[in-house]
Amino acid sequence: MIPEREEKFIRSHRVARMATADRAGKPHVVPICYVYEEGFLYSVIDEKPKKVAPDRLRRVSNIEGNPQVALVIDDYYEDWSKLGFVLLQGVAEILRGGEEHRKAIALLQEKYPQYRAMALEDKPVIKITPSRVQSWGAV
Amino acid sequence: MIPEREEKFIRSHRVARMATADRAGKPHVVPICYVYEEGFLYSVIDEKPKKVAPDRLRRVSNIEGNPQVALVIDDYYEDWSKLGFVLLQGVAEILRGGEEHRKAIALLQEKYPQYRAMALEDKPVIKITPSRVQSWGAV
Repeated sequence: MIPEREEKFIRSHRVARMATADRAGKPHVVPICYVYEEGFLYSVIDEKPKKVAPDRLRRVSNIEGNPQVALVIDDYYEDWSKLGFVLLQGVAEILRGGEEHRKAIALLQEKYPQYRAMALEDKPVIKITPSRVQSWGAV
Repeated sequence: MIPEREEKFIRSHRVARMATADRAGKPHVVPICYVYEEGFLYSVIDEKPKKVAPDRLRRVSNIEGNPQVALVIDDYYEDWSKLGFVLLQGVAEILRGGEEHRKAIALLQEKYPQYRAMALEDKPVIKITPSRVQSWGAV
C-alpha cells in the first residue's frame, strides 16, 4: 500500500513526529522513534524519562479516546530544494502484550541500539495502521 | 508567559512540526518555518511548491474549522541524553492582510533569507497563540 519510494524514506529515517487529538479535537504532537514492518509502524513508550506513568501519557490517552493519528517524517535543510516529507494518516491502537508486541520490541531494539539496554517487555507499544500516504518535495 | 529557557529554544530553532485536526478530530501534521514574536508564533503559506491553492491546504481548512493546534520543536540525536523538545498547544488564526500580517512577513524574511526572494505579501499567515507550554529533556 505504501509506494516503494515512500517506504524507503520511512525506513531510512530515525525519528517521526506523531500527532494525536483528544475527543474534543485538541491536537498533541511529539517526536517518536519507530519501526516500519509490513505496512505498519510501531513505537514503544520507552524508558526515556517521563513525568507520568505510560498509561497516563497524553499520546496514549488520546489514542484510546480517538484512534486517528498522523505522522510526518522529514529532514530540515537550509537548502530548501532538498526539503521533503512523508505524511501518514491512519489509526493507532495500543498493544500491551502478545506475539506482535514482542516482535515490535525486537524490531525496535534491532533498529535502535539504545533500546537494547532498556526493559521494554511490559511497555505499551503504539501500532499505527496508515490508510493514507502523501509525500512532498525531495523524498 | 513562555519561560525564558523555552523561549530561547523556540527562537534558536528553524523548523517546527505543527499539528492541526479537522472538525471530526482527524489529525494532520507538517513541518513549518516560523518566527516567534512577543508570545506569538507566525508561519506563512509560502511559495514552496504546493499541490493546491493556499486556502485549500489542509492546515488552513483545519484551522478554519477547528482553531486548536499543537507544535513541537525538537532535534533528534543518536545520543539520547541530548534529546529535548518544547511542545506548544493553543489556538491559531489565519491573517490575510493588515499591519500584523505585514510585520510577520518582515520578521520571517529576516529570519529566513530564503523568503526574501518570495512574494509573500498576499499569502495567508498562520498566527499561533500558545496557551500551554511544556518542555522535556535537554532544552
